[in-house]
Amino acid sequence: MFTIGERINGMFKDVRQGIENRDRRVIQDLARRQLEGGADALDINVGPSKGKPVENMLWLVEAVQAVTSCPLCIDTPKFDVMQEALRACKASTIINSTKATEEDLSKYIRLAVETGSRLIALTIDAGGVPSDVDSRVMMGATIATKAMEGGMSITDIFIDPVILPINVAPQQPLRVMDAIRQLKMLSDPPPKFVLGLSNVSQGCKERRLINRIYLTMAIAAGLDAAIVDPTDHELMKAAITAELLMEKQIYCHDYIAAYMRSR
Amino acid sequence: MFTIGERINGMFKDVRQGIENRDRRVIQDLARRQLEGGADALDINVGPSKGKPVENMLWLVEAVQAVTSCPLCIDTPKFDVMQEALRACKASTIINSTKATEEDLSKYIRLAVETGSRLIALTIDAGGVPSDVDSRVMMGATIATKAMEGGMSITDIFIDPVILPINVAPQQPLRVMDAIRQLKMLSDPPPKFVLGLSNVSQGCKERRLINRIYLTMAIAAGLDAAIVDPTDHELMKAAITAELLMEKQIYCHDYIAAYMRSR
Repeated sequence: MFTIGERINGMFKDVRQGIENRDRRVIQDLARRQLEGGADALDINVGPSKGKPVENMLWLVEAVQAVTSCPLCIDTPKFDVMQEALRACKASTIINSTKATEEDLSKYIRLAVETGSRLIALTIDAGGVPSDVDSRVMMGATIATKAMEGGMSITDIFIDPVILPINVAPQQPLRVMDAIRQLKMLSDPPPKFVLGLSNVSQGCKERRLINRIYLTMAIAAGLDAAIVDPTDHELMKAAITAELLMEKQIYCHDYIAAYMRSR
Repeated sequence: MFTIGERINGMFKDVRQGIENRDRRVIQDLARRQLEGGADALDINVGPSKGKPVENMLWLVEAVQAVTSCPLCIDTPKFDVMQEALRACKASTIINSTKATEEDLSKYIRLAVETGSRLIALTIDAGGVPSDVDSRVMMGATIATKAMEGGMSITDIFIDPVILPINVAPQQPLRVMDAIRQLKMLSDPPPKFVLGLSNVSQGCKERRLINRIYLTMAIAAGLDAAIVDPTDHELMKAAITAELLMEKQIYCHDYIAAYMRSR
């Protein structure tokens, strides 16, 4: 699984304070711990931190880049912040994210091509998050088509079929898996699939258990990547074991350590 | 998930000794602990214990029936032992198991109808365990057809697509899930699907982790039942959470406790 570490997000109090106090150690420690836990890329999101979003983002990118050259997943709804951040990145980048509306897709696909970035595209349009499978599949197909027309490689596209919390949208986990299974047959090779996993357990009590079980099920449905907390060792062990059972790794007694070494 | 407790099996040393010493407490304690853990039925297998198989089986059935009236899953390859055991059972019974050969199917389906038992049928024929998906699907279809022709209800059939250990047969976990997905579309309602789960991790180091992750993935593929160790709480929590995410239960903060109470 391509693991995108979710922790450098101003939504978390430690990160927000780290940004506001310009405390590089807090951020860099989170970067290191996530990479040790198995992150392949790090999500970078200023969240609701005080100050100018562009300045905060550039400071955050700079702080992380000082300790790692891993891919950065720039996570902002603001197009200008995205542009500035991508320009500041030295390593490879992932745009997180675009919606599936015509206008947004055109704009973000162009930016992805210009900057050589991969692109996360949500199956969300003007009507919001669809509740059914078919709308997700149609939007997924539109995303893949537009991306290829725009000059992107299909494997640089991550379609995010948007998972909602189980406690308010109980049908959605199953529908998201169905959408992934159907969209996997779109092309050969297919686009990639990603989820912002922790949303499934928002407001729930057994958050880590629900996250890890849903991640396992989604991997069985064909999920390639997830935005998760890689310092959650049980989650990472579940993902590595699920991929072993999907025949993505050869069994050896120390298959978990072998996975970590082979990254 | 319909949970069949695997622990009362002479393959385990404590059970073999319990049978040979006619020590009812060992057996009854295992029965109680498995039911507390979440078993809906108990597998009963004399394994390689010394003595006459029929006598050992009848003693085992008797010992278990003295403490519970839950369904018993009579697990023996000997047809005469199966007949005697079913006759001795007071509660409902499950025959474990028949192969998918014409001769075995006819014989066991007749026995199931005569005794009002449910029937576990393995996708194994004269050629052994198939390595591909298609043979499993063909045998599964044969099992379902013969069972209905023989007068059984389709929902009293448990098809077991036979999982092999990941360390010697790495392609099998995926193929078993594919077979379940395809066979689910056979009829409406479909037959039920069961696995002897622990076989997937035979000879592996991280047995419990592999069992629990594969169970989760198989539930996502449509598995209805499994022969497992219900005293493995992490396994049971994984199964209950997987079924929550399959929309088989409504979310509440105490959904695990709610599941246990509702059984």
